[in-house]
Amino acid sequence: MTQQIQKQAPHKSITGNLVNGVDLDILQGTVQAIADDPELGKCRFRATNTWHGGTDNRTTVSGFYGAKQEIPHKQQFVMRADEPSILAGDDEGANPVEYLLSALAACITTSMVAHAAVRGIHIDSLESELEGDIDINGFLGLSRSTPKGYTDIRIRFRVETDTDNLEQLKELSSFSPVLNTLTQGTSVSIEIEGM
Amino acid sequence: MTQQIQKQAPHKSITGNLVNGVDLDILQGTVQAIADDPELGKCRFRATNTWHGGTDNRTTVSGFYGAKQEIPHKQQFVMRADEPSILAGDDEGANPVEYLLSALAACITTSMVAHAAVRGIHIDSLESELEGDIDINGFLGLSRSTPKGYTDIRIRFRVETDTDNLEQLKELSSFSPVLNTLTQGTSVSIEIEGM
Repeated sequence: MTQQIQKQAPHKSITGNLVNGVDLDILQGTVQAIADDPELGKCRFRATNTWHGGTDNRTTVSGFYGAKQEIPHKQQFVMRADEPSILAGDDEGANPVEYLLSALAACITTSMVAHAAVRGIHIDSLESELEGDIDINGFLGLSRSTPKGYTDIRIRFRVETDTDNLEQLKELSSFSPVLNTLTQGTSVSIEIEGM
Repeated sequence: MTQQIQKQAPHKSITGNLVNGVDLDILQGTVQAIADDPELGKCRFRATNTWHGGTDNRTTVSGFYGAKQEIPHKQQFVMRADEPSILAGDDEGANPVEYLLSALAACITTSMVAHAAVRGIHIDSLESELEGDIDINGFLGLSRSTPKGYTDIRIRFRVETDTDNLEQLKELSSFSPVLNTLTQGTSVSIEIEGM
C-alpha cells in the first residue's frame, strides 16, 4: 500500500486536495489501494509497556504492521500513566481509564473528520467533552456484582459546520474503530511468563 | 473519601508501608473508606478533546469526580493523537487505536501490581508487549461485513517475581477496568450540536 500510495501522492503537500485538513489525494490513494487488494488493509497495532514502580508505567509505540509490511512511526511515542493520590499514585500522568477516553475522543473525531472530507462536508472547528462512569467498588473487589469497567460513556461534540451536516456527522461517528471496539467488545488474550 | 484518607495517611511517604512501590496505608485507607460507604466509589472520569485540523487532535484531562467530590489532577495532561502518513496524517502522535493499547497495558499493569501488593505478592519488574488486529477495510467502508474495531488483542507479560506467583498474577489481571470495558463492552452515547 505504501508503495502504491507513494506513486500517487509521494508527500503530504500544501498544494494537495485538502478538505478539513485531510489530504484527499493521499487518503483516496490508500482507499483505492486497499479496494484493489483487501489484504493491504489488515493491520496489527503494537505497543510495549514498562512498569516504573507503584502505579507509574510507560507505554511506547514505535510502529505497526499494515500494507503487508512493518511501518515505523517517524518517532517513538511514550505515554506515561499514573494514578491520583487517593489511588496511591503520584499523579504524574493520566490514569489508564482516562487514556481510554482519550482514545475514544480522538478516534471518533478523526473518523468523522476524514469521512466528512471524503463526502465533501466541510468542518470549521470541532471539540468534544466526555464523561464515563466507573464504580470502583468493582475494581477494588468490594462488590462482585459491580462491573469493573465503564458502564456508560457520554460524549458531546460541538461542531462548527452547516447545521444541515450535523445529523450526517453523527452517522459518520459509527466508523470509529475505538467506538466499535468499546461497544462491541473484543477478544483479549493474556500470557504471563517469568523473566 | 479524600477526607477519610487524609486523616489516615496525609501524604504518600517514603516511610509508608510500601509493597511494589504501592503505599498500602493509602490504598487500604481508600478501600476501607469505600467499604464503609460504597457511594464513595462511584467515579466519573472526564476528558475534553479539541480538533487541530486533519488527523491531529488533543485530549486534555484535568480532574475527575469521585469520593462525592471533584478531584483535580495536580496538573493537566494533554494527549496528542495523529495518524501516520499512509492514513493522511503527519505522524505527530500515537494514533487513537494505539492509545487504546496504552490504556489497556497501563490498566492491567496497575491492576496486577496493586492487587498483588495487597496480597503480599512482591514484583521486582514487569513489562509487556501488546498486539491487536484491525482490518481497516471496515473503517474505510470497503467491507460492511468487516468489524471496524479490534477483533483480537494479545498481551504478553514478563514478570520478575517468584515463579509460584505467575498464575495468581494472571488471575489478578481480571480486576482491570480497561480490560473489562474492552471484553464486556460498554454503552457509549453521542450527542452532536452546532456551535
